[in-house]
Amino acid sequence: MQRIANLLMIKDDHVLLLKKPRRGWYVAPGGKMEPGESIYEAACREFKEETGATPIAPHLKGIYTMVITDTAGETIEDEWMLYTFIARDLTGIPYETTTEGVLEWHPVESLATLPMAEGDRTNLQFAISQSGTQYGTFYYTKEFKLLKEVIQKSVEG
Amino acid sequence: MQRIANLLMIKDDHVLLLKKPRRGWYVAPGGKMEPGESIYEAACREFKEETGATPIAPHLKGIYTMVITDTAGETIEDEWMLYTFIARDLTGIPYETTTEGVLEWHPVESLATLPMAEGDRTNLQFAISQSGTQYGTFYYTKEFKLLKEVIQKSVEG
Repeated sequence: MQRIANLLMIKDDHVLLLKKPRRGWYVAPGGKMEPGESIYEAACREFKEETGATPIAPHLKGIYTMVITDTAGETIEDEWMLYTFIARDLTGIPYETTTEGVLEWHPVESLATLPMAEGDRTNLQFAISQSGTQYGTFYYTKEFKLLKEVIQKSVEG
Repeated sequence: MQRIANLLMIKDDHVLLLKKPRRGWYVAPGGKMEPGESIYEAACREFKEETGATPIAPHLKGIYTMVITDTAGETIEDEWMLYTFIARDLTGIPYETTTEGVLEWHPVESLATLPMAEGDRTNLQFAISQSGTQYGTFYYTKEFKLLKEVIQKSVEG
């Protein structure tokens, strides 16, 4: 089962997003965990590889079960785990363009309107605006149309 | 890849542990995630199934990459993810014996000395005594001897 870790950098009320060439959708920098890595190591390594910069004090904000189903939402065709971190500072200056797409700083408010997977919008907005940890399952079609989301959250007791 | 969620219940300075018959080792109640579940749903469902009681306000404290290697620690033979929650209250009265083993309340301090996997000791002691979230990788032999642990942690920024 695939495990993906990503990291949303927020600094001076702007977030660092990667615009992917295929659909023009924005994502937080991230990628696949390697064998034996922790999710923390994977999020830091992927952020460095994709941006050239180093996150300071990243913290896990969300853990999501990602499910791809047929159009009717009845048969599970693929499933993977997504771990979303946030960090509020970095060292180094991020690249502007990479092999993965274009890196851009956007005002935090634009997370509400920039083109992206609808589940990512839920996750990234939670990460920057609420305390605690979010969990959930996102059901998508193969074309990445969101069919359903089921969300839980908790805060430290 | 297997995903395991467990939940440490702590109440009145006692923790609820399951004594497994095979080695006599203690574990926090838990088990395998089902397809499409979130890790939160899995931790709650497994706790209920194994104890008969319902956790109140569980919160994720640790996410671990579990690696089984050959005795030399060089070849990865299996890998799975462990998600450890904590809760500080419950409804219902836990079973005393189950098909999985015997359920016992122990003083918190006994986590330092009860027989258990050494990685579990690290995880459970973190969960009850420190704030924030812990990450890491535990390398075990097939006989569940801990070869190495690599740990990171973070707190909400």
